[in-house]
Amino acid sequence: MRYETMSSLAQQLRVDAVRAADAAGSGHPTSSMSAAEIGAVLLARHLRYDFDRPDHPGNDHFVLSKGHASPLLYAMYRAAGVVGNDELLTFRRRGSLLEGHPTPRLPWVDVATGSLGQGLPVGVGMALAGKYLDRVPYQVWVLCGDSEMAEGSVWEAVEHAAYCRLDNLTLIVDVNRLGQRGPTRHQHDLGAYAARLEAFGWHTVQIDGHDVEAVDAALREARATVRRPTAVLAATRKGRGVAAVENREGMHGKPLPDATAAVAELGGYSDLRVQVTDPPAAMPPRLVRGGAPPLPRYDKGDEVATRDAYGRALAALGDVRGDVVGLDGEVGDSTRTEYFAKAHPDRYFESWIAEQQLVGAAVGLQARGYVPYASTFAAFLTRAYDFVRMAAVSRAGINLVGSHAGVSIGQDGPSQMGLEDLAMMRAVHGSTVLYPCDANQTAKLVAAMADLDGVRYLRTTRGKTLVVYGPEEEFPVGGSKVLRSHGEDDRATVVAAGVTVPEALRAADRLAEAGIPVRVIDLYSVKPVDRATLDQAAGTTGCVLTVEDHRPEGGLGDAVAEAYADGHGNTPRLARLAVRSMPASATPEEQLHEAGIDADAIVSAVELLVERVLVR
Amino acid sequence: MRYETMSSLAQQLRVDAVRAADAAGSGHPTSSMSAAEIGAVLLARHLRYDFDRPDHPGNDHFVLSKGHASPLLYAMYRAAGVVGNDELLTFRRRGSLLEGHPTPRLPWVDVATGSLGQGLPVGVGMALAGKYLDRVPYQVWVLCGDSEMAEGSVWEAVEHAAYCRLDNLTLIVDVNRLGQRGPTRHQHDLGAYAARLEAFGWHTVQIDGHDVEAVDAALREARATVRRPTAVLAATRKGRGVAAVENREGMHGKPLPDATAAVAELGGYSDLRVQVTDPPAAMPPRLVRGGAPPLPRYDKGDEVATRDAYGRALAALGDVRGDVVGLDGEVGDSTRTEYFAKAHPDRYFESWIAEQQLVGAAVGLQARGYVPYASTFAAFLTRAYDFVRMAAVSRAGINLVGSHAGVSIGQDGPSQMGLEDLAMMRAVHGSTVLYPCDANQTAKLVAAMADLDGVRYLRTTRGKTLVVYGPEEEFPVGGSKVLRSHGEDDRATVVAAGVTVPEALRAADRLAEAGIPVRVIDLYSVKPVDRATLDQAAGTTGCVLTVEDHRPEGGLGDAVAEAYADGHGNTPRLARLAVRSMPASATPEEQLHEAGIDADAIVSAVELLVERVLVR
Repeated sequence: MRYETMSSLAQQLRVDAVRAADAAGSGHPTSSMSAAEIGAVLLARHLRYDFDRPDHPGNDHFVLSKGHASPLLYAMYRAAGVVGNDELLTFRRRGSLLEGHPTPRLPWVDVATGSLGQGLPVGVGMALAGKYLDRVPYQVWVLCGDSEMAEGSVWEAVEHAAYCRLDNLTLIVDVNRLGQRGPTRHQHDLGAYAARLEAFGWHTVQIDGHDVEAVDAALREARATVRRPTAVLAATRKGRGVAAVENREGMHGKPLPDATAAVAELGGYSDLRVQVTDPPAAMPPRLVRGGAPPLPRYDKGDEVATRDAYGRALAALGDVRGDVVGLDGEVGDSTRTEYFAKAHPDRYFESWIAEQQLVGAAVGLQARGYVPYASTFAAFLTRAYDFVRMAAVSRAGINLVGSHAGVSIGQDGPSQMGLEDLAMMRAVHGSTVLYPCDANQTAKLVAAMADLDGVRYLRTTRGKTLVVYGPEEEFPVGGSKVLRSHGEDDRATVVAAGVTVPEALRAADRLAEAGIPVRVIDLYSVKPVDRATLDQAAGTTGCVLTVEDHRPEGGLGDAVAEAYADGHGNTPRLARLAVRSMPASATPEEQLHEAGIDADAIVSAVELLVERVLVR
Repeated sequence: MRYETMSSLAQQLRVDAVRAADAAGSGHPTSSMSAAEIGAVLLARHLRYDFDRPDHPGNDHFVLSKGHASPLLYAMYRAAGVVGNDELLTFRRRGSLLEGHPTPRLPWVDVATGSLGQGLPVGVGMALAGKYLDRVPYQVWVLCGDSEMAEGSVWEAVEHAAYCRLDNLTLIVDVNRLGQRGPTRHQHDLGAYAARLEAFGWHTVQIDGHDVEAVDAALREARATVRRPTAVLAATRKGRGVAAVENREGMHGKPLPDATAAVAELGGYSDLRVQVTDPPAAMPPRLVRGGAPPLPRYDKGDEVATRDAYGRALAALGDVRGDVVGLDGEVGDSTRTEYFAKAHPDRYFESWIAEQQLVGAAVGLQARGYVPYASTFAAFLTRAYDFVRMAAVSRAGINLVGSHAGVSIGQDGPSQMGLEDLAMMRAVHGSTVLYPCDANQTAKLVAAMADLDGVRYLRTTRGKTLVVYGPEEEFPVGGSKVLRSHGEDDRATVVAAGVTVPEALRAADRLAEAGIPVRVIDLYSVKPVDRATLDQAAGTTGCVLTVEDHRPEGGLGDAVAEAYADGHGNTPRLARLAVRSMPASATPEEQLHEAGIDADAIVSAVELLVERVLVR
């Protein structure tokens, strides 16, 4: 396509953005218009993509990090012939695939965007896959807005991309000078962005983003640059092409005041089509995807930390599955992901202390078909909550592993204790939340996670815990284990998970001796939850006590309460033991005692509960 | 103090760090030892601090961002004469104020650290206060580790500090080359850090961090530098001074193998004391702290967005309270914090799209006695969850306001919808979670928040909602409002908040017409929750339906379930309506309907519930 035609194509993209937003009555046409030449030139000359085969292993990846500029993306799809004019005008309507911000409901969208600053970290994950795993020469193009360069996650990615020499990654910054509520910090000072990026080791190119020849040359230079990622810094004008809105404040995120006049000013409707370049023939690596791995086995009665069992199981899983990759936030010796790193160094990605990049890379890797396990302390996964939330919108399949959960870590104190992680992860749509209490259970769950959909979270414990199950025991996701039961004689049910399971068992033994038989359920699958077993226990015992090394909100107590909140089934009397104070330093045993989640507390609570039920 | 004595003091700090960790049997002596000269010189020559008056308005602030180096801090306190030798050896023991990571249980610690990458953003908040509000020439010293420079939050702060010309802020990076599990990315390449920081506009000084003269000169240069923040990049050796651990891998986070020998190698126990320089006399600004502000008043029956009511109430609150400050993540026109920004530009801090810095600055500002209100979309507060969690450990009083909550935002789609925020905020220790349904209620709650302790969260709605309360109505935190009741005739209770309140009212009217009287509770105080009213409703109606524009986990449904999970009181049959699918674009009304949280859904659910209770 000649430059002149590319300029016409850019105008068409603008016209389509204006029309789409006008039809919707909302949306971001001006943020789309600034990047029209970038979109046109990328589509016409640089993107290698087979729209009929979104899963073609040689396809480039285009991530629209500035997801609010979705009208530009959909206009590009119309130019590529995969979205028709009628569909374009369904933008933002109920049922339309053309959502306000792009999601993978569209087959050509790898990951959802719309929370700014996420495109580059995710693109880093895709580029890591291309360079170090697939070894296929696809290019990852990430289009960012200038406002989102303020997000720390962008700089985690900038550092990581340069360090990993990701020359298959190109960042294009649409420097349109205007953020949502006014000028950006650096306005049109491209040099400010260039200095920062170059200091981190990037190659940069500064251009007029409305000059199609300059855009073309810059993207060519980007793909040709080796050993360094390239950033194309494009000075543009928001709302470019329509005088009423161009480069004006107060024109963010709304349809143009007079769409008909704007379309005319832009040259009117057109129907240029782009024959997008096919990707080169490419084969993804032939990955071993063997069956169940020979997992490490632990003897009942031994004491093993579940974090240790996680690391060993992951290494074993890696032996039989070539699609499993490991990532960690520079604490692999604590999370025990180091076992995987040592066994499979070619599939391990050190992510340093940058949890947003850690999870972003996992999302990027899964978009290339890998099964990532990303780990850090449970407490520090809070740093990446927006990425986890967006992973769900992306329908991404990722495994997150949070170690050092709860007060049971002991002396390190509250800053290191994951006490909100169950609440955080349960609230994620479609998530699975697992909290094993022993080593054999952990091993089985680590293997089971690999094949689930959505965000999978495993919570592990720092200290050693008793192996209560044999290595042959199975732990279906959504199940639970009844560890103590006296059948119809049970007068209360204690639901525990992780470190509180041994406490519950000790309490049950003491209560049984005192003539109060209780049922103990190990609710290792916190989400989904085993409603049937809980319902049966409620029916028999009438009262249910949950005990968790977590805040009282959103965790195990809520999981159990929700199981009883479906409007039918039994309605037990519920009570919660959980961490209600702010811990300080103390030994693990002291912590459990002070928090009121140890065997003593369970015994007292059950005695009170049973008494109340009796006198009721 | 002479340089020679400062070197001796540094050795004393090392000895104390070794002794403290040895007594505890855990801790981070090697990470403390690398920064011993920095600590010694800072304490002896540069810190202006009255240990008897931690609230002295002229005091410098020292933030130990690398909080795991707490033994260094506690050793400095011993040298300053405020911690005795016996107390030092209680390090990490139950009951000791000398926790594994510093917390404000110690009067000289402003904010808790231990989640890396938070010290600088919080320090920026303190420096903003000093430069723009207090106008007192105190210096903010932040000591970071080199590993934590990978955290994006650090770069949000680096950008913000330079942009705001915070020459009262000094970052000292203890470049000891070794992270937790091995060498850092840049090891001893000080130039790598300098280039990055200078690109952002910082002044930098590179020194040998074990040369007390060089440290002294650098800190002097830092305080003297104007119009730019200064970073002192200090090359150091982890475990410095003890050959068995110095600059060696595998020595992170554990006591020294032979503490007695190490103490001898370091020159033995000593008891040097530092007379820390007093701060200059200083007056904090005399802030108006007037009574209740004349809040905006809204007429019943009008339609007003609660986000709008928030912005107007905050502006009014600012009129009578000089300690109230506003911050926003570059979406003030959406959150409506712009009303405050326009009314009180001198107390408004634009925080750009950098949510970690946004919350970090709020924590820093509250440490100086201000009452910050920090706002962005509820969805994007997930970006700052680790900062919110740590704010609770800091016992910080901050107000967070999340707008655009829930599916009710409509067309923008799931990336912009806060659907996990109630779960996230409820799980924070000591938090208050408020979710108003109308403008008058919002105004009252905005004013009430200012005087609470801990993390306060207000959830606002994008669209206009009916004003259901008069302007005289009061809304105590921890209360609720019974909006419909037929006394003992009520056959079910519907608990709603925010956008679901009008839906519940519509449903109640329809159900009443159909002969099913129901009670409607507006649970605007989601945490703490009004147990008494809920208990009474359970006693009367036997079944309770919660309906929320949020995921089913951790939100309103959990708040109500937890109220019934205290082991006594009534035990109703519970059911939850919440957002169980992944929304796409649609109108607000369509969204509520599709999610099953509108009046139709409530009517159906109540009919089913009542039927089940009757046939039970």
